Amino acid sequence: MVQRNAIFRRQAYLIAVAGGTASGKTTVCHNIINHLGDTNKRVVIISQDSFYRNLTAEDLALAKKGDYNFDHPDAFDDALFKQVLCDLKEGLPVKIPCYDFKTHARVVGKEEIIDNADVVLIEGILVFYDPEIRKLFDMRIFVDTDSDIRLARRVQRDLTERGRNIAQVLHQYTTFVKPAFDDFCFPTKKYADLIIPRGAENIIAIGLLVQRIQEILRSPRSSSTNSLDSDGKQSDEENHVPSICGDFTPH
Amino acid sequence: MVQRNAIFRRQAYLIAVAGGTASGKTTVCHNIINHLGDTNKRVVIISQDSFYRNLTAEDLALAKKGDYNFDHPDAFDDALFKQVLCDLKEGLPVKIPCYDFKTHARVVGKEEIIDNADVVLIEGILVFYDPEIRKLFDMRIFVDTDSDIRLARRVQRDLTERGRNIAQVLHQYTTFVKPAFDDFCFPTKKYADLIIPRGAENIIAIGLLVQRIQEILRSPRSSSTNSLDSDGKQSDEENHVPSICGDFTPH
Amino acid sequence: MVQRNAIFRRQAYLIAVAGGTASGKTTVCHNIINHLGDTNKRVVIISQDSFYRNLTAEDLALAKKGDYNFDHPDAFDDALFKQVLCDLKEGLPVKIPCYDFKTHARVVGKEEIIDNADVVLIEGILVFYDPEIRKLFDMRIFVDTDSDIRLARRVQRDLTERGRNIAQVLHQYTTFVKPAFDDFCFPTKKYADLIIPRGAENIIAIGLLVQRIQEILRSPRSSSTNSLDSDGKQSDEENHVPSICGDFTPH
Amino acid sequence: MVQRNAIFRRQAYLIAVAGGTASGKTTVCHNIINHLGDTNKRVVIISQDSFYRNLTAEDLALAKKGDYNFDHPDAFDDALFKQVLCDLKEGLPVKIPCYDFKTHARVVGKEEIIDNADVVLIEGILVFYDPEIRKLFDMRIFVDTDSDIRLARRVQRDLTERGRNIAQVLHQYTTFVKPAFDDFCFPTKKYADLIIPRGAENIIAIGLLVQRIQEILRSPRSSSTNSLDSDGKQSDEENHVPSICGDFTPH
Repeated sequence: MVQRNAIFRRQAYLIAVAGGTASGKTTVCHNIINHLGDTNKRVVIISQDSFYRNLTAEDLALAKKGDYNFDHPDAFDDALFKQVLCDLKEGLPVKIPCYDFKTHARVVGKEEIIDNADVVLIEGILVFYDPEIRKLFDMRIFVDTDSDIRLARRVQRDLTERGRNIAQVLHQYTTFVKPAFDDFCFPTKKYADLIIPRGAENIIAIGLLVQRIQEILRSPRSSSTNSLDSDGKQSDEENHVPSICGDFTPH
Repeated sequence: MVQRNAIFRRQAYLIAVAGGTASGKTTVCHNIINHLGDTNKRVVIISQDSFYRNLTAEDLALAKKGDYNFDHPDAFDDALFKQVLCDLKEGLPVKIPCYDFKTHARVVGKEEIIDNADVVLIEGILVFYDPEIRKLFDMRIFVDTDSDIRLARRVQRDLTERGRNIAQVLHQYTTFVKPAFDDFCFPTKKYADLIIPRGAENIIAIGLLVQRIQEILRSPRSSSTNSLDSDGKQSDEENHVPSICGDFTPH
Repeated sequence: MVQRNAIFRRQAYLIAVAGGTASGKTTVCHNIINHLGDTNKRVVIISQDSFYRNLTAEDLALAKKGDYNFDHPDAFDDALFKQVLCDLKEGLPVKIPCYDFKTHARVVGKEEIIDNADVVLIEGILVFYDPEIRKLFDMRIFVDTDSDIRLARRVQRDLTERGRNIAQVLHQYTTFVKPAFDDFCFPTKKYADLIIPRGAENIIAIGLLVQRIQEILRSPRSSSTNSLDSDGKQSDEENHVPSICGDFTPH
Repeated sequence: MVQRNAIFRRQAYLIAVAGGTASGKTTVCHNIINHLGDTNKRVVIISQDSFYRNLTAEDLALAKKGDYNFDHPDAFDDALFKQVLCDLKEGLPVKIPCYDFKTHARVVGKEEIIDNADVVLIEGILVFYDPEIRKLFDMRIFVDTDSDIRLARRVQRDLTERGRNIAQVLHQYTTFVKPAFDDFCFPTKKYADLIIPRGAENIIAIGLLVQRIQEILRSPRSSSTNSLDSDGKQSDEENHVPSICGDFTPH
């Protein structure tokens, strides 16, 4: 049964894009999609932010005062995140929660269905943090932008798009965003296969990724994995698809 | 005349690979060539080391005592290096000097001729240093390996391949190699389009570059430049082929 | 009783000196002692290395093959280390284990007794790692030496003083020493009050510490704590002597 | 004659305090002065900012548009700065220009006279930049604060104290302040004798400096130089008072 289905299912190629706040992760992903043009219907972006936990009443009270740490690994529902990535990898349809940043809760009954994706870009500050999740990715990219430039961008964005005042923005940044980056995001940079400096304005790097994705889209799915003979240490330890997904079907 | 020839000439795509000593620059380049397989006849590697100046008698005396700084920008013949790169870019045949590391001089009458290259990988510690040379490259890669790992590799290599003793190796490293890296190589990392962590064992990044080169080799030369619409600031300032090459023929 | 004794006991001023392998921690400490000259009888150095755990048979087998990680926090007996520091702080006599680096075990019946110390220099790669231990120190110093320079020093030391071969030294460094530094030592640099670049050759910084210690030795013990009014955030959170030591007597 | 005068002149001890914008340089200096209390009449602070050049008409036009680079080494009058430091070192009275940040020019006829200073704190982003100036300092301190924290502080300060808007502040920071820090200030960190993390809130480090200055103020001036035997490489190369000051009188 499983083997027969496997013929019709298409395994997705998972590209993780990590980096600090306002590093340009999301813009890099969107630029890739834009440059892909017409072929983009089987390439999707999912954000780690969609996998925020539903807050408890206690956490919610903190959040309202600006005292909940949304940059800490514990803020994310890793079990669900991992299951969704495993299913995507297998070519199964998945449901992405719709997270409401105002109520800090998932919108009940509202989910995005992703089916038959060939390439999935997964972006988030901590997508490299969990070792089991980290191993699911076929390619790991770190968007590396200096911390002061990231703060400058975040200030501009939060003031104009999110209607906050400068004191709030700087308080949240220095209290939560920066320490979490230093403690949890930056140390995962070493797991990157590729580091993209400057972020969205780096058209050479984006062009390289666009071309890689075009190649994946052109090729039969059996060749979606890296085309090199994988004889390196890195590959054995880190890039091999592990057996953590209970219903994972090897193709 | 020039214009007529231009029809038949093929402009080369120049990929610069910078990084500190023993970062894995050369191995990355060779791995790329190996993975390209049969198509590799039009892809060549040139090393900045081939462009060392002929030493004066005075410099030679220093070199014999291990007191000449081969890691300083002044050790290289930038004028010749630039001319060769300009000619390659135009599709003209070039002569690469054959540098003898024992006599510290070019071997008279012995040169490597490169003709009709489609892609040239140019590796060296200071290939991003000169602003005019830097602008000639279509893609700039920095192989980023921690300094202690690089020293560990260099120690092993110098002891086994070059027959030096450990005291000599460490003296040269701390006196010349490290300060020159800190002062001249590291500050050029910011010009990279792509940073490859770990070097030669990074098969994902190498696979990406192999595929990019295969695409260039497949495509007509007119599309050898980056396929994205180049509307970013970076592109305008840094990646545009400048007019420094006197005989440069725009295609 | 306790209060009466307290009159005669002298609380010690604890200066922690952290830094990577071969950063110059020990030499900095010894240079301080040397410069103190005749007054040095009440200033002592203790090394975190004295607090290595006794290895189990299993660990010992690993250690013999060079596969035990002596740079990991778990290699140290933190409970004993903390108790000794608490006792020193109170002015109580302490026993420092005598660790045998050949048998990887404490020498039974052999201990160094430290009594009546005024200033204790505590050096080790991970002395800032445990939060409770970290809070016991009156001053935290990080000796900051570049990783390649540290490796160069370690290679020289291990080859000449410890009779190892270069392959062993580099294997241990890249397998254990470096990853443990990156994961456990470097992240504690942020707890330093003072960063001393270059290590032992930095005579200006050492002179400053010598003078500070001379001042402590001159002053009555009640003024051994920092003479500034401590109104900063840092002081409240990190530098205040905590209540973790069960028998701690406030003076 | 000179020798006789030398008996009455007091050579000043020069402490340079470098660091990026809003690192806390000035606050560190003021905290030192405050903690010195009554003795502070012979300890003065001078700022590198006082030595900005008078702008030309052309520069002034740029400055009015926010397009003059006040963070570049060329913006400072190094010749005057050096002469003042040499005179201070000799114990001669000096005149510090009064720079008007609105007109971008020195106020004619208005200068601060400093006479008979024992200790001079010299703070500025580029006080370590010029090699000859750098050698004049008896102690070199770098206040090391993360770049994003510095930007957060600068934003707050410029908005509240200087009446600028956020767009202006971020534009100036990303266009001039940051690149100049990366290119000119950060590379001078290696000349520091002491690195003070976090800046003004670091009371332990400030306490150490206060005590050092108190000791200098207590001691006869002949012992104002570092009390250690200076047998290190650093001392010979960098800390020795050089002969660049034409009228320098050795004491």
